[in-house]
Amino acid sequence: MALRKFTLFPYCQLNAVSCLLNRQLPKGVRCVSTVLVPGEPSGPCVKTTIPGPKSLQMIADLDKIQFAGSIFYFTDIKNSLGNYIVDADGNSILDLLTQISSLPLGYNHPDLLKVLQDPDNHIAFINRPALAIFPTQGWPEKLTSSLLSVAPKGHTQVTTMACGACSNENAFKSTFMWYRNKQRGGAPITDEEHSSCLVNKGPGSTPFTIMSFKGSFHGQTLACLTTTHSRSVFKLDFPALDWPIASFPRYKYPLEDHIKENEAEDRRCLAEVEEQFEIYNKAGKFVAGVVVEPIQAEGGDVHASPEFFRELQRITKKNGAALILDEVQTGGGATGKYWCHEHFNLPDPVDIVTFSKKMLTGGFYSLPEFRPQQGLKIFNTWMGDPTKVLLLEKVLQVVKRDNLLKMVELSGKKLMDGLKDLSRRFPQHMQNVRGIGTFCAFDSGSQQKRDETFFRLQQHGIQPGPCGEQTIRLRPSLVFQPKHADIFLDILEKVLKEIQTP
Amino acid sequence: MALRKFTLFPYCQLNAVSCLLNRQLPKGVRCVSTVLVPGEPSGPCVKTTIPGPKSLQMIADLDKIQFAGSIFYFTDIKNSLGNYIVDADGNSILDLLTQISSLPLGYNHPDLLKVLQDPDNHIAFINRPALAIFPTQGWPEKLTSSLLSVAPKGHTQVTTMACGACSNENAFKSTFMWYRNKQRGGAPITDEEHSSCLVNKGPGSTPFTIMSFKGSFHGQTLACLTTTHSRSVFKLDFPALDWPIASFPRYKYPLEDHIKENEAEDRRCLAEVEEQFEIYNKAGKFVAGVVVEPIQAEGGDVHASPEFFRELQRITKKNGAALILDEVQTGGGATGKYWCHEHFNLPDPVDIVTFSKKMLTGGFYSLPEFRPQQGLKIFNTWMGDPTKVLLLEKVLQVVKRDNLLKMVELSGKKLMDGLKDLSRRFPQHMQNVRGIGTFCAFDSGSQQKRDETFFRLQQHGIQPGPCGEQTIRLRPSLVFQPKHADIFLDILEKVLKEIQTP
Repeated sequence: MALRKFTLFPYCQLNAVSCLLNRQLPKGVRCVSTVLVPGEPSGPCVKTTIPGPKSLQMIADLDKIQFAGSIFYFTDIKNSLGNYIVDADGNSILDLLTQISSLPLGYNHPDLLKVLQDPDNHIAFINRPALAIFPTQGWPEKLTSSLLSVAPKGHTQVTTMACGACSNENAFKSTFMWYRNKQRGGAPITDEEHSSCLVNKGPGSTPFTIMSFKGSFHGQTLACLTTTHSRSVFKLDFPALDWPIASFPRYKYPLEDHIKENEAEDRRCLAEVEEQFEIYNKAGKFVAGVVVEPIQAEGGDVHASPEFFRELQRITKKNGAALILDEVQTGGGATGKYWCHEHFNLPDPVDIVTFSKKMLTGGFYSLPEFRPQQGLKIFNTWMGDPTKVLLLEKVLQVVKRDNLLKMVELSGKKLMDGLKDLSRRFPQHMQNVRGIGTFCAFDSGSQQKRDETFFRLQQHGIQPGPCGEQTIRLRPSLVFQPKHADIFLDILEKVLKEIQTP
Repeated sequence: MALRKFTLFPYCQLNAVSCLLNRQLPKGVRCVSTVLVPGEPSGPCVKTTIPGPKSLQMIADLDKIQFAGSIFYFTDIKNSLGNYIVDADGNSILDLLTQISSLPLGYNHPDLLKVLQDPDNHIAFINRPALAIFPTQGWPEKLTSSLLSVAPKGHTQVTTMACGACSNENAFKSTFMWYRNKQRGGAPITDEEHSSCLVNKGPGSTPFTIMSFKGSFHGQTLACLTTTHSRSVFKLDFPALDWPIASFPRYKYPLEDHIKENEAEDRRCLAEVEEQFEIYNKAGKFVAGVVVEPIQAEGGDVHASPEFFRELQRITKKNGAALILDEVQTGGGATGKYWCHEHFNLPDPVDIVTFSKKMLTGGFYSLPEFRPQQGLKIFNTWMGDPTKVLLLEKVLQVVKRDNLLKMVELSGKKLMDGLKDLSRRFPQHMQNVRGIGTFCAFDSGSQQKRDETFFRLQQHGIQPGPCGEQTIRLRPSLVFQPKHADIFLDILEKVLKEIQTP
């Protein structure tokens, strides 16, 4: 196995430009150029091919116990820090995937470590409650100081769950209950409803549906999977429900050169939404809700315009259905706002917003009319995990103190400018640069080219994310600074040159 | 609000009888009469009605944020210890529900606290990995020393998940893949399969089904909910799939007086299983698997005979389907074995065994032929949580060191003997006593009577669990000792006398 030595780039200095912002900062908020995670390496350091021999041995060991075919490499989590993940072979890699976009503050953030070092917190970790029956005292205050402190506009209600899929499953269930209650119009529930649902029959079991979009990803449990359409690997061999599907816009880039085409694309997709409502409602398979990602992430970072989402909200409302925004991947700050849909200036609050990943806990915000009328309907044993909320509370404090959403904006601008420049210079290998904040992506022209770019970046100490058929997505944590963007862009340029003249 | 004073019972002494076992114990294993959680109260102590005024205020506070109608009371987790949960009003309650059967060692077990106090463990809690892409080094060893060390007979493969519902959803998916691959017989996957599944159509999306039993509970996400049939509250207003359902035996008690009737009941239910296989397979809605609880827990602690399960395994195998045992509630030691189905002497290993709750992590064991052929099919962002496995590893050490499965057997015998005695003395209020280990239950004759027994037990400082329509279930932790059984039985007797002569 060939060992590869990688020359470090001199990027450990503070980024001077961003310090200009210092004067505009509110009191108590740190300058964005501060070292956010003390002790972070000054750049990647690659000693072996990736995965290296130790990771390969560990993958073989794990494969004796479970299928291990999707593993990139094993990690040395103790030595990982900030934006740098260290693998089992000692390679220090600038991480732009961050555990599939789920690490808000990178690795071993000192403030999170303090949460664990505080003995008062230890009991929370060893006494996991059944939250919907025996919550711990202080729980309402904890929800208020964490999840509700960053709630989307108009939201006062939040329910925790263990993961993204459970959050979407329960968002769908909240939608079905709400729709059925509207249909009932106050009429009491009949004995026939109670008895029929026990054997999966109507009228107790409902023929309701959730509309979703081609290319979307909403998770891999059965209802979620029915609304997922990004890649066949997720769906093949499993049953699916007959629920409506509409097209999601596929824009031409650069956007500014294709305004008319892209507006027409919006109209085409929205017409499909209207049509699906009509077909399914007419057939009695009433569309109770529409679920949509603000940016289709797994599906290839597919963006749609604010106008598209505003019109989608109008059509959904007109049809008496709920709009469910799946912010599992887009939420948590990577777009420069806690919720990506806050970039869309929607006229009304979204009915339900689901989250997980960077929020550390799964769950959803929902308008008051989506509250269950009865216990045990939106329910499971644990209903999330208070220790994740405890950590989230600290994350949100750090985001505020260190002005990290501003950092996302700055680093995102640096990334986007650099990516656009590279795309102009290497048009055969980089197209359709797009992004909000650091939630950025570009296409490679083919799956084979994407895989080559991905592999070479990894060997040079950059961990990007693949998505869709030919896309590289960037999902750094919120402590990703312009200096890290510089390192990444320099290495990407180097890789593109290697590919161009092998 | 009336305050109630409760006289403490003198049950702090060690149970002398159980010490007789001392001589039979293997080296290094503690005598079961040892104080298992030092500092535990000697009995319940009730100062207010339950829920008390502080809990009621907290429930009102939480209800502003989310529906809080299923909450019993808020807890003072810091002051809870061993078998005793302390509520927000300072009531110390002997807990026979233990967070819906999910606390293996009760509250604040000193050995679990040590896991949190060890600084080497802190990093695991603040760096949650995406386990199917970037596992932490040492992960295969951790799975081996924890979950695989107590694997059911014949199992070498384990996959972690976040919760019980996700475990069952993925057990179903593993079953569908396995069934489809058998059907393919090695033929390659076609383009049509890939493209059709993306829009939820065949042949890529399959018409396969999972058979389940009346009265069962397998979780509340959509596929799980389709197989759940215990109570209408869980199912009403939600869509359900057309999947086969068979009857689960309903025995007459005492078992020894109704052998013939109960054998006939087994035959009736198994005939329904055969019939459902025939109907659904003939209709092309192939039954890929049968999911069943070893004891229907939420549905009212409904037991079936080992003979029933052995015959069910035979019929399932004959029909080319997989047998999935949902041990989410029965697993983890409460029956005196780690897996309840180990009491059934099944001729072959079960295809898939799902778990959660007392195992702290969700997940499933599955035979090697159920491994996916490809990555990302049994997949989500986190794939469980290594910190739960870290705690589980310690739990399993304590169970072994303190001989807790033996303790379950002893305490269970004490419980069952006492319950049977009370049932004979109060036949109008207690019937159908049943149980394995401490996984015990009895019926009250009606929902109203059950609710009264439940309420009065709570007011006397006992936290039982309700299930089914008229059942009280007991779900103590594994540190529940004969002395705790004595306390419970004395208070239950007191309550039954109160009810009999109000």
